[in-house]
Amino acid sequence: MGMKESTKDKIIKTGAEIIHLKGFNGTGIQEIIKAAGIPKGSFYNFFTSKEEFGLQVIDHFKAHFNLLSKSILEDNSLPPLERIKKVLDLFMDFFMEKDYAYGCPIGNLAQEMGDLSSVFREKLKSAIDSMVESYERVLKEAKASGEISELLDEREAAYFIVAGWHGALIRMKLEKTLEPLKNHKKFVFKYILRP
Amino acid sequence: MGMKESTKDKIIKTGAEIIHLKGFNGTGIQEIIKAAGIPKGSFYNFFTSKEEFGLQVIDHFKAHFNLLSKSILEDNSLPPLERIKKVLDLFMDFFMEKDYAYGCPIGNLAQEMGDLSSVFREKLKSAIDSMVESYERVLKEAKASGEISELLDEREAAYFIVAGWHGALIRMKLEKTLEPLKNHKKFVFKYILRP
Repeated sequence: MGMKESTKDKIIKTGAEIIHLKGFNGTGIQEIIKAAGIPKGSFYNFFTSKEEFGLQVIDHFKAHFNLLSKSILEDNSLPPLERIKKVLDLFMDFFMEKDYAYGCPIGNLAQEMGDLSSVFREKLKSAIDSMVESYERVLKEAKASGEISELLDEREAAYFIVAGWHGALIRMKLEKTLEPLKNHKKFVFKYILRP
Repeated sequence: MGMKESTKDKIIKTGAEIIHLKGFNGTGIQEIIKAAGIPKGSFYNFFTSKEEFGLQVIDHFKAHFNLLSKSILEDNSLPPLERIKKVLDLFMDFFMEKDYAYGCPIGNLAQEMGDLSSVFREKLKSAIDSMVESYERVLKEAKASGEISELLDEREAAYFIVAGWHGALIRMKLEKTLEPLKNHKKFVFKYILRP
């Protein structure tokens, strides 16, 4: 990896962390440059605009979600529903460590930018669809093994679960406890994901 | 109502609409002043800071939600669950008219500001709790009349429903259809709010 590539990665990683907490409009380019410890002006060597940068940050978040969840959701040594529980527990551990801040960066940006930019909207839609599809695949396995009802539509259920999770994260930010996420998990497994 | 009172109301109403679409950090005071058609500088005759203004905008949103939902949720001529369906339908009509933009202003601000300001956090928590309590009261009636299971915890169910709605609104902003809200309603009534 060349010097330029690694500086670009550093800007994306640093910017992603600040945007995760403060949102896209709440984060300034100067703030990112300062936090990344790179020379003023070098931002525009790598990105033509803040928008182009933001789109690459979304790709970064999407890849990060896949990296964290894929090995669990595709672990055939575990029953399908156990994998979903394990992913939710993994994210709960993350948020506990982060003092119940941040939330899901894709959900955050969808909420913030969904009405404001059509290029953000398309990119974020594809990121959420990709999340939903990774759950949907597991739910298909769960149906095949009889863990969930034959009558449950896997795709609709996956969308419902992701939406409920995003909503629970909103309340987590206010409550500053895991309780909203635990309530989500409890309802999903008690009422939706069952034979 | 005196002249000063009505100018203040105009600033809050105008600011609330812009913040509803663009978020708190995405909205500038100059933009509000311009849209409200009031003289530059008069903003600070009414509000000591943008934050103080934001807190009053949250009160405005909370009062508006109560105004819209209260008469339906407390309408004893309808069975309890019909009232909840009617409120969801009312908001679906609103979002259809608004081209699937805006979302819930309380949910939006909770997501945006929950990690950034403790005074916003407390005010938003009380607004969401008030929403949840209005559903909880209806669910208690639904339990008494046998429309939902004795085993369902009304408070937990109300939190789950509000969270799922907020998450569905996030996806509505990306999809630009009612489908995410319809999916929410379908799952809530098929799997949670039933005998």
